[in-house]
Parts: sequence; C-alpha cells; structure tokens
Amino acid sequence: MRLLEERIKKDGIIGEGNVLKVDSFLNHQMDIDLICKLADEFYRLYENNGVNKILTIEASGIGIAAIVAQRFGVPMVFAKKFKTKNLTGDIFTAKVESFTHGTVYDIMVSKKFLSEKDNVLIIDDFLAKGQALLGLTKIVKDSGAKIVGCGIVIEKAFQDGGKKIRDLGIRVESLARIKEMSAETGVVFFD
Amino acid sequence: MRLLEERIKKDGIIGEGNVLKVDSFLNHQMDIDLICKLADEFYRLYENNGVNKILTIEASGIGIAAIVAQRFGVPMVFAKKFKTKNLTGDIFTAKVESFTHGTVYDIMVSKKFLSEKDNVLIIDDFLAKGQALLGLTKIVKDSGAKIVGCGIVIEKAFQDGGKKIRDLGIRVESLARIKEMSAETGVVFFD
Repeated sequence: MRLLEERIKKDGIIGEGNVLKVDSFLNHQMDIDLICKLADEFYRLYENNGVNKILTIEASGIGIAAIVAQRFGVPMVFAKKFKTKNLTGDIFTAKVESFTHGTVYDIMVSKKFLSEKDNVLIIDDFLAKGQALLGLTKIVKDSGAKIVGCGIVIEKAFQDGGKKIRDLGIRVESLARIKEMSAETGVVFFD
Repeated sequence: MRLLEERIKKDGIIGEGNVLKVDSFLNHQMDIDLICKLADEFYRLYENNGVNKILTIEASGIGIAAIVAQRFGVPMVFAKKFKTKNLTGDIFTAKVESFTHGTVYDIMVSKKFLSEKDNVLIIDDFLAKGQALLGLTKIVKDSGAKIVGCGIVIEKAFQDGGKKIRDLGIRVESLARIKEMSAETGVVFFD
C-alpha cells in the first residue's frame, strides 16, 4: 500500500537489530486518519469472506483492530498477555516468545468469545518471526473457529514469520512488506 | 448514559472484591457499535474544548481511545507500561500502583508526542482508585500540555479516585457512575 510505504519512509526510524520504529504514527502515537485508510484496505481485501469477528493481541494491535472491527461492523476480541483477576473461567491459551521483549509469555482468550460459529480475521501491527501470530492461530484453531486470514500492517519479509503462517495454508495480507532495511543508511526497501 | 447502564446491568458480572467484569463488551471482547456510541457522547461533552490529542494507557483503554480519537479527528497517544527496545529517547514517566494486578509499574510517554501546544483529553475504561489517571495527569502536566478533562467509561463512584482527580480541578466525565454493587445479589446501583 503506497500511502503506508511512503509514511514508513518518511517517519520510520531504523534502529540496530532490525528494529523499525514507527511510534510516531502506529504503535505509540497513532495517526487515526491513516489507521482508517488501512482499515479500508483490510476491508477491501476481506469483505467477501464472511468475517464476523476481529482478533488481535494486546497492546499495540488493539487500536488498529478496533478501527478495523468498526469498518467490518463486527466485534473485536483482544488476547491478553497476563492472567489477571478479571480473566477467569475457561480460557484458550498459547505460549508466545517475544524477541522484542526477550520473554516468553502466555496469551489467553476467554472461551466465551470464540467458537466454531466464528469466521475470524486476525489483525496485528507487525509480523516478523511470527510468534504472536502463531499463538493467535493456535487459539482460533483450538476454539473450532475458522481463520479467514491475517491482516498485518507491516511485515518484515526478510524474517520467516510470514512464511511460517502461509505454510500452514493461512492467507496473510500485509499492507507493507519490507524486503530489506539498513540502520546504517536509514533506507527501507519494500517488496 | 442510559444505554451503557443498561448494558452493565445486563452483561456485567460482579465478582468478589468489587470486581466488575465487563469483558463481554468493553475490555476483552469489544462491542464496537457500543464504543462508537460512547465516543459520540464524549464528543458531545468535550467538542467545544479544542481537544487536539487523546491520551490513554495500555492496554484496555486503547480500543476505546482509538474510536474516540477518530470521532474528534485527532491523533491518539497511549502511555506504555513497560520500557521496551522500541521506546527510547526522552520520556515522561509516572509511577502507578495497580490494585487489580497487585503491582507498581512505570508508565511512559515519549516527549515527542506531548508538548505545551496540546489540549489533551484523557480516556480510560475504568476509574476506581484513580492511580492510572493520576499518573497520566502527571505526565500531561510535566509536558506542559493542557488537560481538557478526562472521559471515563465506568467510574466506581464508591471509591475515591474520582474525588482525587476532581479535587485537582480537573474535569472528569464518567458515562456510568456506580454508587454501589453487590457480588452477593448481583445488583448494581448507579448515581
């Protein structure tokens, strides 16, 4: 998506260790105008697939998924990362390794909110090594719901997460696919 | 707001220790139709106050704040709870005690995203003892920005958070104010 690629070129900052900072418009400050346009694009890609639920994972996926859910006119569910007093009863869980944070954590969705009646579109801001997305797909499969596909804002296509998910036969649509980027030169190349 | 009060009565579940579970429509699964109506109400309350930025805190405030920001046509910023590799440079911080999670944590906003030019509306799902909101107001004050007010979905008016914030001279608008609730009878009374 040209508009997004241009925004990444303009405002993205490349750090050491393949970190792409897009905190001025995507995952700390959010440019809601832009997010609405991303949501329109996800809608265009998946409008004929009977999506009746949007699933994401806290925290930075939530704002995007809320706007996408509004565009589709369906509820949104966000997987939680920590067991709290507010999350009780039967839950679907998966283990996720975060390379960004250097931790392993459980993600959880209450069994009340996913079932075999659901056609789920999974939304997230980033796809790199694919761990969070693999966790979410496991949860959807455990629930008996159907995965319509995944909608990703930025895919680091030089990492293997996208391949892992697509190899499972799951449709993945990424609005920007980064082929290569360099902290040294500050240049990003898209697929 | 009558619609919200009725929804809380219908779908809210009261647990021990003054826990109100609204995870079927507000903070795990999100009824985006309802959230849009809440956003309309926040807009009605604050439309003439020159709001140019929405501020919230991860995680459960983000979805609501995104829809509210869309309604106002302004960007949204969410305070982060953990220092990550993606949050570098100068930051505003505050310490917050979470009674729900039994922890103390730092919240952070990059200095790039709040300044004396901003008129900030703070949005959150719950106001109980007010710790998160106090942390956010400290951050806004440290930045030199103006706090237009706070927009809260559910205030536990039998706890002292609302009083603490209002005693600072800050406008707080809560769409549902719970006066009393009982885990035993399952009944909620509103102000």
